[in-house]
Amino acid sequence: VADLTERALLDRIRAHTARRLGVAVGIGDDAAVLDGEPAEVVTQDFLVDGVHFRRATTSPEDLGHKALAVSLSDVAAMGAGPVAAVVGLGLPTEDEPSPEEIEALYRGMEALAERSGCTVAGGDISEAPALLLAVAVVGRVPRGGRPVLRSGASPDDVLCVTGALGASAAGLMLIDDPRLGAGLAEAEALRTTHRRPAPRLAAGRALAAGGATAMIDVSDGLALDALRLAVASGVAATIELERLPLAPGVAEVAVAAGREPDLLGATGGEDYELLAAVPEGALPALRVALDVPLTPVGRVERGVPGVRLLRDGVEIRPARLGWEHGAER
Amino acid sequence: VADLTERALLDRIRAHTARRLGVAVGIGDDAAVLDGEPAEVVTQDFLVDGVHFRRATTSPEDLGHKALAVSLSDVAAMGAGPVAAVVGLGLPTEDEPSPEEIEALYRGMEALAERSGCTVAGGDISEAPALLLAVAVVGRVPRGGRPVLRSGASPDDVLCVTGALGASAAGLMLIDDPRLGAGLAEAEALRTTHRRPAPRLAAGRALAAGGATAMIDVSDGLALDALRLAVASGVAATIELERLPLAPGVAEVAVAAGREPDLLGATGGEDYELLAAVPEGALPALRVALDVPLTPVGRVERGVPGVRLLRDGVEIRPARLGWEHGAER
Repeated sequence: VADLTERALLDRIRAHTARRLGVAVGIGDDAAVLDGEPAEVVTQDFLVDGVHFRRATTSPEDLGHKALAVSLSDVAAMGAGPVAAVVGLGLPTEDEPSPEEIEALYRGMEALAERSGCTVAGGDISEAPALLLAVAVVGRVPRGGRPVLRSGASPDDVLCVTGALGASAAGLMLIDDPRLGAGLAEAEALRTTHRRPAPRLAAGRALAAGGATAMIDVSDGLALDALRLAVASGVAATIELERLPLAPGVAEVAVAAGREPDLLGATGGEDYELLAAVPEGALPALRVALDVPLTPVGRVERGVPGVRLLRDGVEIRPARLGWEHGAER
Repeated sequence: VADLTERALLDRIRAHTARRLGVAVGIGDDAAVLDGEPAEVVTQDFLVDGVHFRRATTSPEDLGHKALAVSLSDVAAMGAGPVAAVVGLGLPTEDEPSPEEIEALYRGMEALAERSGCTVAGGDISEAPALLLAVAVVGRVPRGGRPVLRSGASPDDVLCVTGALGASAAGLMLIDDPRLGAGLAEAEALRTTHRRPAPRLAAGRALAAGGATAMIDVSDGLALDALRLAVASGVAATIELERLPLAPGVAEVAVAAGREPDLLGATGGEDYELLAAVPEGALPALRVALDVPLTPVGRVERGVPGVRLLRDGVEIRPARLGWEHGAER
């Protein structure tokens, strides 16, 4: 599907599927939503060696952590809390992981599950052409609450991002080329953020309770995920690059690599922060309620659905907004 | 893990994971069970080209059907009904499926979802080394009911199987070598059963409501799945080969291939029938209640957990009990 973006393909798929009893939100959000009290969310992601990670540079513990983290991040982006993760493990016949490596992988997953209040509740094992983890997570929305969709943003909402940006992309650059971090105090912290992203579960629930109108996790790059939120909400999003909360050390790595720091923060993927649309009046209380910084980075406006990146008021058009299946080939 | 069966590996994994609030059954059954009213089940399976199917001999519609069917079969084996399926689609960069093929795949999935009252509710798309489908399904146990686990079988229960056995294995043999079915009226029906297995959702719920004490779906071969049920229940299982309900045409295909028909029925995988332990007194009413035949094929007894296959009273020890990851290498 070289000529199709993932979104276009999902639109074609959606045309072939119907929503039935018990399901409130189908294809197109971070997670599906099941009716009920409490409402539930279901999400699934898979990670394959050579595409989403490289065994050569990823420890089994880190891999287990990350495989669960990416699904928990989707649950966080709905304002829900995870209950159970069901894991499918695909093992290659060539260079098959040892039982000890597999145990380490589950240890990494379990450590994150424990911190997240979630049970690793199923484990299917099968052969696969490459090491593969498929993780489905069921989460529940707090009683009396509602899931926050991508589609609820209103004109005049402020776009806010949790935590800091660019650390995962910079960390991956440092894993690939350690020289970029020579003498950099934050180098190890950046690599750790890439290897062990922290899903923003508490922040997601606080944003939902505090009035966020739309939310998405920043998995493929802030700019691209902002585009998805804007398109789903039918609004125009503007991101002001000078407001992005770059993680410490990101600017140095970007400069060492000849990249623009703000664009690395705007388009580097795998931050697993949350991007939320928030009514301006709700912002002060939210900034107090969250366990991580919440930074306004832009605004929602009426207009043609899309995203604009401004640098000191001037529109910047990067070659790509983030990582999208099919878009870069 | 050439020296480890899937079960041994799952035991090792289980030692590294803990069950937390809200989860009633973790690793080791057909599906995880979440507390609640109604209780819920969550299952996940993935299918990869070259391992679980071959693109060359599988139409996209059939693949979509089968990917959903294997997860629905797990839901059926818990006595639950499916609510939502969340699908991860992995696309190879080489020989990538066309958008039309992907649409056909979802059409096949949707047709089965519609018949099953289930919503295809999520669709993640990513790159993968080979065409890959990961399908997670959330199901709900009927109100007032309880999920049927693998572990509840009691001595003196009768082992029963729904429908007919061996059709999928025979169908695959015919796909690989059509000459085995020369002149066989049932050849196309056998191939169709392999390509489009029917998850026994109504039968699973009827068995649960009618008193089945343990249940598992026959995915890897009746004998192997009976072993799993017996080990989970801490009982000895005996299967009488002459009682197996072979599908029409299976015996002919087996003979043409130089295989023993009863063993093809006992060890051929992917039948997606249900194997249930049932108190003898419950059997007559169940046979009336089910929408498919229910055939007693053996018995549960006290003793060392395991499975014995008897042919006219004489124990038979086949080279393998079914398809198990790691056991055959």
